[in-house]
Amino acid sequence: MDNFTFYSPTKYVFGRGVESQAGALTASMVGRKVLLVYGMGSVVKSGLLDRVKKSLDESGVVYHEFGGIKPNPTDDRVYEGIDIVRREGLDGLLAVGGGSAIDTAKAIACGVPYDGDFWDFYAGKKVVETALPVGVVLTIPAAGSEGSGNSVITKIDGMHKISLRTEVALRPKFALMNPELTFTLPPYQTASGIADMMAHIFERYFTMTPEVEITDRVAEGVLTAIVEESPKVMANPEDYEARANIMWSGTLAHNGICGTGRREDWVSHFMEHEISSVYGVTHGAGLAVILPAWMTFMADHNPFKVAQMARRVFGVENHDDQSAALEGISCLKAFFGSLGLPVTFAELGIENPDIELLVKKLHENKGDVIGGYYRLTAAETAEIYRLAL
Amino acid sequence: MDNFTFYSPTKYVFGRGVESQAGALTASMVGRKVLLVYGMGSVVKSGLLDRVKKSLDESGVVYHEFGGIKPNPTDDRVYEGIDIVRREGLDGLLAVGGGSAIDTAKAIACGVPYDGDFWDFYAGKKVVETALPVGVVLTIPAAGSEGSGNSVITKIDGMHKISLRTEVALRPKFALMNPELTFTLPPYQTASGIADMMAHIFERYFTMTPEVEITDRVAEGVLTAIVEESPKVMANPEDYEARANIMWSGTLAHNGICGTGRREDWVSHFMEHEISSVYGVTHGAGLAVILPAWMTFMADHNPFKVAQMARRVFGVENHDDQSAALEGISCLKAFFGSLGLPVTFAELGIENPDIELLVKKLHENKGDVIGGYYRLTAAETAEIYRLAL
Repeated sequence: MDNFTFYSPTKYVFGRGVESQAGALTASMVGRKVLLVYGMGSVVKSGLLDRVKKSLDESGVVYHEFGGIKPNPTDDRVYEGIDIVRREGLDGLLAVGGGSAIDTAKAIACGVPYDGDFWDFYAGKKVVETALPVGVVLTIPAAGSEGSGNSVITKIDGMHKISLRTEVALRPKFALMNPELTFTLPPYQTASGIADMMAHIFERYFTMTPEVEITDRVAEGVLTAIVEESPKVMANPEDYEARANIMWSGTLAHNGICGTGRREDWVSHFMEHEISSVYGVTHGAGLAVILPAWMTFMADHNPFKVAQMARRVFGVENHDDQSAALEGISCLKAFFGSLGLPVTFAELGIENPDIELLVKKLHENKGDVIGGYYRLTAAETAEIYRLAL
Repeated sequence: MDNFTFYSPTKYVFGRGVESQAGALTASMVGRKVLLVYGMGSVVKSGLLDRVKKSLDESGVVYHEFGGIKPNPTDDRVYEGIDIVRREGLDGLLAVGGGSAIDTAKAIACGVPYDGDFWDFYAGKKVVETALPVGVVLTIPAAGSEGSGNSVITKIDGMHKISLRTEVALRPKFALMNPELTFTLPPYQTASGIADMMAHIFERYFTMTPEVEITDRVAEGVLTAIVEESPKVMANPEDYEARANIMWSGTLAHNGICGTGRREDWVSHFMEHEISSVYGVTHGAGLAVILPAWMTFMADHNPFKVAQMARRVFGVENHDDQSAALEGISCLKAFFGSLGLPVTFAELGIENPDIELLVKKLHENKGDVIGGYYRLTAAETAEIYRLAL
């Protein structure tokens, strides 16, 4: 086990009706004047935004609205938000939505107190040391941003989709999580969120750090719960209990508890970021395509942890590691398929992906050789993209 | 799943040599003038205390030493500590040791800013609203106090051993966790710590709250890791990797992550607290006696969750719940036995326990009918004590 620091000071308030606490928690943990960041129509149409505003009003919190954040959020909105927060002298941010709204809020939060260009943090030129406080009302369990110190933003110039990781500076002060708010998610978005949270676990699970049984077992536990609960949310979108299990799984998948003491991987995410930045696909759907391809490559090159996952999560019976890994990958593909997710580029609607471009951008953004579980050259990441055809 | 709040803002710094960060973290998160709380001889003899003091000196932290805290810590030392902190105008506390030192520090921390008797909090007459900050250098993985908001103190007058639970007020600001510091723990203490951390999971695992698959699976994962790693630490006390897995398991067992969204039980702890307050036994050893007895009672009265644990942790094959539960209990007893732990009163060195007295104190302290998984009367807790004979 490697040395580690785990510091997750987010207050999670989970259950029916908890969005009514938005005002009180914003006032006590974020500030009295906030930027209210949200996405497209659904939080408005559902009435959630009105309920949140009412709660803010009742607690005497003044807010400036900043809506219309799109999926795969872009840097232009971040610059715009930074200007507003500075001009209005706001204390912090409240994001209402999923990863796009939260990640935009986080980018603004670290950009405001910084003299230079906020993109310096995403480009790896500067480390975030201070940020405005951010609160969250979560509506989509997927990105895990409600419990992470991370933020993913796409730079429009060049379509670079980059993830910023901080230990604690960008962790939300609080996250209000009402599973009922996820009842109206379309099936494809629910399924994509499930693939995203599983990917967050896999990226940590696949490690060469030896002797990390405790985090292996916790990660396998969360994966198993997701595999068991997912069919229930797909069959009945208003199954509160299943929605609750999936929502909390999404937080545990990405708040760092599954990654303590181990080198992580993250190649599948990096590879998918190039697909979604070039083709604009849903991140989780892209991951459902890349994850099995990445694992298939590993079955040939470094199968042992894929085999362990296959045995412990999908109940694959004992035989050699390579065969167990391949059988587990079949189970994973069948599982994704049962949720209505694509598992090939073609199913994703990309008949002839420009693999050369994807590989070029990938290694430009992330370096010549990438990955924690297995070090991959451009020739090898190209092979993985091809395995996803 | 029940509504819940999970708020664990402790900064865990884990790995080799991390005690050298005691000064810097105390200065930044606890204060410049602290009460240095520690136990009996081992932290002195090992040289750890000197290393911590050196680190405090280097960071300019002034400390007042407060050593000699005994196992099953008592209220007299708490009153003494409160007086010192007030008299010396200290900012906070640094505990070096296991649960006894940490729990004493926490009791002092909430007692200092309170006008009345600190015991009011433990007696349930008052709720802790504010407390001095506490930092921790952990030497014994067992009580889980490094990651919990709880503290257990024994009132000498009447020998009432009572647990205080707070959501966040008594959670340590930081916990420094170096598995090497546990190499010198005697085997019996190592084993007792393992029983204690397993009990912390069982108390949360055994619930009547339906549809809590995600926390069930996480709890089973931590239990499984403990069962796998324990033989290694018993066989080789200097196995860093196994010690690290056990140490982090002890934190996850009790920081609340295994209890989100579910009613908890805690009867086994309450029953053991009476044994250790009357007979002065090691808490974890007492739990190794009570847990199987409690589960045996449940095999007759409410077997389903005991059976689930038996199947998922000990791999018991499917048959009816009662039989599966009983087989799982046999596995648990065999496991405790393999660690050198007692599983009966006689093995604990108590040939003729005064069950009438234990039951009387238990229900005086905790009420006429107790338990979250199954509601137990005095006649029934007496039966459980008898099952442990």
